[in-house]
Amino acid sequence: MTDFAAIDAFIRANIPKSISELRELCGVPSVSSRHQSIEECASLVASMLRQRGFVVEVLPTDGGHPVVLGHVTGANPSRRLLFYNHYDVQPPEPLDLWNSPPFDLVERDGAVFARGSKDDKGEFVCRLAALDAVRAVTGFYPCDMVWLAEGEEEIGSPHLPSWIADHWDRLEADAAIWEEGGTEVDETPVVRLGARGLLYVELSVRSIPRDAHSGQANLLPNAAWRLVWALASIKGLDERVLIPGFYDDVRPPSPRQEELLLALPSNAADIRTEFDLAELLGGTREVDRAYFSPTCNIAGLVAGHQGEGTKTVIPAQALAKLDFRLVPDQKPNDIVAKLRTHLDVSGFKDVQIETLGAEPPGVTDADASIVKLTAEIGLEIYGKPARITPFTGGTTPMYLFTERGIPVVAPGVGWGTKNRAHSPNEFMRLKDFERAARHIARLAIRFAET
Amino acid sequence: MTDFAAIDAFIRANIPKSISELRELCGVPSVSSRHQSIEECASLVASMLRQRGFVVEVLPTDGGHPVVLGHVTGANPSRRLLFYNHYDVQPPEPLDLWNSPPFDLVERDGAVFARGSKDDKGEFVCRLAALDAVRAVTGFYPCDMVWLAEGEEEIGSPHLPSWIADHWDRLEADAAIWEEGGTEVDETPVVRLGARGLLYVELSVRSIPRDAHSGQANLLPNAAWRLVWALASIKGLDERVLIPGFYDDVRPPSPRQEELLLALPSNAADIRTEFDLAELLGGTREVDRAYFSPTCNIAGLVAGHQGEGTKTVIPAQALAKLDFRLVPDQKPNDIVAKLRTHLDVSGFKDVQIETLGAEPPGVTDADASIVKLTAEIGLEIYGKPARITPFTGGTTPMYLFTERGIPVVAPGVGWGTKNRAHSPNEFMRLKDFERAARHIARLAIRFAET
Repeated sequence: MTDFAAIDAFIRANIPKSISELRELCGVPSVSSRHQSIEECASLVASMLRQRGFVVEVLPTDGGHPVVLGHVTGANPSRRLLFYNHYDVQPPEPLDLWNSPPFDLVERDGAVFARGSKDDKGEFVCRLAALDAVRAVTGFYPCDMVWLAEGEEEIGSPHLPSWIADHWDRLEADAAIWEEGGTEVDETPVVRLGARGLLYVELSVRSIPRDAHSGQANLLPNAAWRLVWALASIKGLDERVLIPGFYDDVRPPSPRQEELLLALPSNAADIRTEFDLAELLGGTREVDRAYFSPTCNIAGLVAGHQGEGTKTVIPAQALAKLDFRLVPDQKPNDIVAKLRTHLDVSGFKDVQIETLGAEPPGVTDADASIVKLTAEIGLEIYGKPARITPFTGGTTPMYLFTERGIPVVAPGVGWGTKNRAHSPNEFMRLKDFERAARHIARLAIRFAET
Repeated sequence: MTDFAAIDAFIRANIPKSISELRELCGVPSVSSRHQSIEECASLVASMLRQRGFVVEVLPTDGGHPVVLGHVTGANPSRRLLFYNHYDVQPPEPLDLWNSPPFDLVERDGAVFARGSKDDKGEFVCRLAALDAVRAVTGFYPCDMVWLAEGEEEIGSPHLPSWIADHWDRLEADAAIWEEGGTEVDETPVVRLGARGLLYVELSVRSIPRDAHSGQANLLPNAAWRLVWALASIKGLDERVLIPGFYDDVRPPSPRQEELLLALPSNAADIRTEFDLAELLGGTREVDRAYFSPTCNIAGLVAGHQGEGTKTVIPAQALAKLDFRLVPDQKPNDIVAKLRTHLDVSGFKDVQIETLGAEPPGVTDADASIVKLTAEIGLEIYGKPARITPFTGGTTPMYLFTERGIPVVAPGVGWGTKNRAHSPNEFMRLKDFERAARHIARLAIRFAET
């Protein structure tokens, strides 16, 4: 019988040590979009894992930042748990909005402030704290563990899929703990089971070699009109995507997902209030159900005169950025091919498509034992029943594991949308850190017993 | 008997002085849409006219940029010629496409390059050069002259109509020389008898208080989509404007205009070559006939993420600039009212319309004596019979004179569509400048004799 009280006490007593390790990690400004301090940060992460008995390699990717891969054996070698984190961070700008230097972690009002203090160095150190406590109290790690820490998450993990394919034999596990997690703003623990995929394309039209005087608008093709007509052919006023075959592979919620949806409260009213809307798009009331539908979003438009006042010009070029959030079993490559065919058939061969991002959706089996376990422990730690959301609106590459049959959960340090990840004055509350470490420690032990 | 050879020689000898004056004028960045350097440019124009004996006033308009008004008496006080120019220019953007700074006139390969080098500062200086030569050789100006130089032509002359109505007693003349003119690309002299009107509007949509994460694209209305759908409802792929009643007041060419149209060769091939097009829009072959149809042009589009790479955002706001070129008897106010009704009826009450410019079309009587005179001198200067075009694609407020019975012609410096007016690297060839100055000098003298 594990002495969880002793584990909890160890976590609490060692918070100063955890903060010290987090300060050291946040002090390395590993901004991936600038390729800054990447090797240094990978070495530090490797060193922290080695100190804990992990056998660690820092392995190259094909032209990208290295992956830190660690393995350790535990008391039950028939169970294996994978941790995924990333050691890179977002740029700190705008610097003038920070109350203290972004790479110099400070503690204030029960929280620590630094770039990466939450996303994702705080989560990484939280997991170390949990495992330190488990080993100190029980004498062992409970099961075999794999640790994968990549250095390109904040730039879309461009080299991770092929790296994972090449190293899959060293990554197999019974379950994976995803990069970050936590509670809703009201401190209800949340277990998120899926993330939509993303296809991000730029559509561009060039109609004439240079902008022309609009007195010739009867004579010269206008790139902006071509783009507008092409866009209008892609989605109708009723929000229905008009690309033939777009919805072919959309899988409706399973009976189990329906069950989870029905158990969820609607947060439509909160979103309506936040965005000052009488109603959500299409009168949506069930927000979590809406995430089971794919989207086609115009993220940007540019053509011709963009300044104040008037300029009578025929734009030679027009650009649109479009993002599609995809649901199972849609595939980015298939959707981009259908988009190309649709544009060709509709008379828009002049509209060029450049793919800027492509990630499939990923969804964890709601019946996986680790899902139930994560939710149960959430109730124990936070005193509220966990909210299990079958799918979410955003995108994260958990498909890399789920499509290989590994369930993914994400107990972690987050506090709803409040941590200012990606923004100035990113922070992590120490009470969230402590509860998340307790959550992970329990999860590792009980996962090893199942 | 006037010594035209001496006039021509004077013009040629004084080209360096003319370029020097043009450099000074182009150096004042009088971008009317930004209200930039307006007073400075008006003063400089006034000063150049005063140096030539004109009595000049810089007169305010009702809330707009001032008008420069000059008068001078000539040898025949029973004839009066009006010159219309504008001292404002289009914005120089995009700056990175200029080969030299836009407001720093440079001479290269027999031409001068700068914003305004042709439109309209080049034309203004050309007229000064012509009148300097006439006065130097004959000792007099040939007749009374009025000079009107406004500062808002490039933004649709919003304050000129009421200013002209208020000052009509000081503007009456027997004929007017309009802002710009010249030859076709093949150097055939051209006399243009009409100009389309212009309605310039900004359409804007705001859907939510601020940009949002596109993971919520099922839930939140996207301003860019609303704008795209609204625009697609305004004009179809076949270029037909879909606003009910838009074509109601379009008057077909008169028998005299048909006669002029039939005498015109098509310059479709030149325009195709210039813009590298297999064919003009809608397969147009009769360019001059096309100008008898109105247009609806998207001059600019802006929404959301406009930079490099990806940003997954739902734009809260979207803007389009639209310009309509209008033909007799369309009226800007009527068209904007019909647009509003159309948007309302089509479900786009959320699309706001701001009118940024409104000018009716204007047409000169093809049988006016100054038309014949301008054409005859064109043949003498360029060695080719003049092409008399009953109507043109662009807009200029010649209606302000034509609707009061004053015929308007426009001998000038232009070289077809090649001068890149409104575009980067606007230029004027010095040989065009010289011929246009000779044309104006002859026209002023012979007009005074009729």
